[in-house]
Amino acid sequence: MIKAAVMGYGTIGSGVAEILDQNRDVIAKQAGQEVELQYVLDLREFPDSPVADKIIHDFKVIEEDPEIRIVVETMGGLTPAYPFVKACLLAGKHVVTSNKALVAAHGTELLRIAKEKNVNFLFEASVGGGIPVIRPLYRCLMGERIQEITGILNGTTNYILTKMDREGESFENALKEAQNLGYAERNPEADVEGHDTCRKIAILTAMATGKEVDYQDIYTEGITRITDIDFKYAEKLGTSVKLFGTSRMKDGKVTAFVAPVMIDKSNPLYSVSDVFNGIMIKGNMLGTSMFYGSGAGKLPTASAVVADIIEAAQNLTSHVELGWSDEKQSIEPMDQASFRYFVRIAGSYRNKEQDVKQAFGKVEVFELYGMDEFAVLTQEMKEGEFKAAAAAFDEKEQANSDFGIKQMIRAAL
Amino acid sequence: MIKAAVMGYGTIGSGVAEILDQNRDVIAKQAGQEVELQYVLDLREFPDSPVADKIIHDFKVIEEDPEIRIVVETMGGLTPAYPFVKACLLAGKHVVTSNKALVAAHGTELLRIAKEKNVNFLFEASVGGGIPVIRPLYRCLMGERIQEITGILNGTTNYILTKMDREGESFENALKEAQNLGYAERNPEADVEGHDTCRKIAILTAMATGKEVDYQDIYTEGITRITDIDFKYAEKLGTSVKLFGTSRMKDGKVTAFVAPVMIDKSNPLYSVSDVFNGIMIKGNMLGTSMFYGSGAGKLPTASAVVADIIEAAQNLTSHVELGWSDEKQSIEPMDQASFRYFVRIAGSYRNKEQDVKQAFGKVEVFELYGMDEFAVLTQEMKEGEFKAAAAAFDEKEQANSDFGIKQMIRAAL
Repeated sequence: MIKAAVMGYGTIGSGVAEILDQNRDVIAKQAGQEVELQYVLDLREFPDSPVADKIIHDFKVIEEDPEIRIVVETMGGLTPAYPFVKACLLAGKHVVTSNKALVAAHGTELLRIAKEKNVNFLFEASVGGGIPVIRPLYRCLMGERIQEITGILNGTTNYILTKMDREGESFENALKEAQNLGYAERNPEADVEGHDTCRKIAILTAMATGKEVDYQDIYTEGITRITDIDFKYAEKLGTSVKLFGTSRMKDGKVTAFVAPVMIDKSNPLYSVSDVFNGIMIKGNMLGTSMFYGSGAGKLPTASAVVADIIEAAQNLTSHVELGWSDEKQSIEPMDQASFRYFVRIAGSYRNKEQDVKQAFGKVEVFELYGMDEFAVLTQEMKEGEFKAAAAAFDEKEQANSDFGIKQMIRAAL
Repeated sequence: MIKAAVMGYGTIGSGVAEILDQNRDVIAKQAGQEVELQYVLDLREFPDSPVADKIIHDFKVIEEDPEIRIVVETMGGLTPAYPFVKACLLAGKHVVTSNKALVAAHGTELLRIAKEKNVNFLFEASVGGGIPVIRPLYRCLMGERIQEITGILNGTTNYILTKMDREGESFENALKEAQNLGYAERNPEADVEGHDTCRKIAILTAMATGKEVDYQDIYTEGITRITDIDFKYAEKLGTSVKLFGTSRMKDGKVTAFVAPVMIDKSNPLYSVSDVFNGIMIKGNMLGTSMFYGSGAGKLPTASAVVADIIEAAQNLTSHVELGWSDEKQSIEPMDQASFRYFVRIAGSYRNKEQDVKQAFGKVEVFELYGMDEFAVLTQEMKEGEFKAAAAAFDEKEQANSDFGIKQMIRAAL
């Protein structure tokens, strides 16, 4: 029997306890022996819960109990998750976490300590909730040169964008609805500004390159600028808008970003709707594959944690090589990334055709009935080129005492 | 350095040789050492190929060379693949195969020998081409009770159905086109009659239950009965028709089948089109996840083979527990499986309303303009109940000297 502890009895932590109990037989078979939950660390008491008699408040109890071989961290945040996880690894315990903030900020160090201590530091649940994606990268796609990872990695924003797409709602109303349903937090910034997606794509990029990635190097733009008008155009174009976390790897150079991207039905991620997540991985031999499922939620995420517990149990005396080294992966400036651009412009195309063509070259033009604006879809160009073109265009428009560009959404069409 | 041999230099075998060469560095890093292709067994010579000097014609060379640790079988079929693979395992070599016929027919015995000899028998590429699905079942979803696996597992039939759906083509024309493009063989029976899908869902069912599954126990129906008229109705219903291999597991009982199934956009497999494959897995904690990608093709399938080579290399001295035991998993009779049924009936609904309601109970009715027929969609019922109802209905119609049921397609709506 292997003894384990859970730190943080919130949504995911309680889900882990539930699965360890309900799927006890399956887990014992796969792990080679029973996994027994010994302690649950939390500040609170849970007198009516099934783990009432396992609740402890002092981390030292876990750290100093040599019988505890596997520690599950589901507290979230960096304090005290980071010092606790570090202490557990230094004490020679395996650690499994669902904490993307922890992995993005301290993964390099924690992976190094795990290797030195010949234990495992596993974090499948930190990206994509219940969807296997970290493990496929080190267990299934090992022979591939990964060329691109693009994910819809945040269920809250995907729910909001799906609502806006299907029901024509404004961002504000869709957000409110998401909050009422418990899909979005009262302070939704981490989701809607893209910070959550940024940490996840940073982790995936580090997995794919084998090098440390600083999430702060990744250009990050959320969905707060996206409007119902944008989706009216999207409908006309047969497209949708999704919040992508993307990294592209070519000849050792990496571009990475988080931003809303306009895509059409030919994209495997087009049909990833509501709170679901999807992760597309492109390999040099495999081509495109996609992993889809519940990107959040108590039991799906806890299921990924339990898979890590089993992997740790299967490798109690050996360190599984995964993750990345101390070497730093530089990220190319966003100006070097190439896209097509969907651009909404005030006024009428008839009057501005010359200026548009001069600034952006060949474009496709779209007009909505009864709107004093139009939209163009540019050819593919580098972000730096686009910015220069847009600045030149706007300057000319100002000289004409007119409004210029009202919106820009990157497009993968 | 680990020495390997490939048996069968066809599409996949040559793909394996190509990836071992082109991704040499990635593979060496993951495998812990270089993988060197020593022999390629084939009846033919390939004087202009990169493996010209590695071609051998005598299996004994591989069997009797103790330096060969990993043997890749990409010959297909059972003879001589089965005796060769068995001999390799008995000689203490690891075997990796892409051969679904071999795994479906002899997997139980080959897995047992591999265990006895403390080597590995791996077959990721036998199902879903390049899509990781076998490995996720034993590496990622280990803590789950699998409740259902449903896959679009055959690219040829999916291409044909996609053509019929999008372009209104007949089955015969769509098949011809698939043959002209090389997606379908001159003798397409194994694909269009569902035999290929049957072997694949048998393998997945055995992986999920941990028990031997006889593919001959699985009800198998192909797509040759599906017509352009069916897709006209499907369009009206907002649905499509896909060839599913499905197994459902509940309380130790397993139903499994291969058949065309009508689904709508809410099904994650709806958007799996053309030659792509998709596999949906439902677990008791995880809920639904889906794996999507290239289900066939030289390099994608070879990539899955290479991932197995790397796993074998990482476990040269240990047997990885996967697969299933000798214990036989019984499959429930198809009459016990539940569906809704899409049924096309000759004549007019106005005249037959009473008979329809009497036979099938509450139904939804659909009519196409200018057709002397109509369609109904039944409530969910067991296949046995449906068959009895359909027989009773047909008998009454014959008494009325009229035609009865023209088509039945199972529906998951």
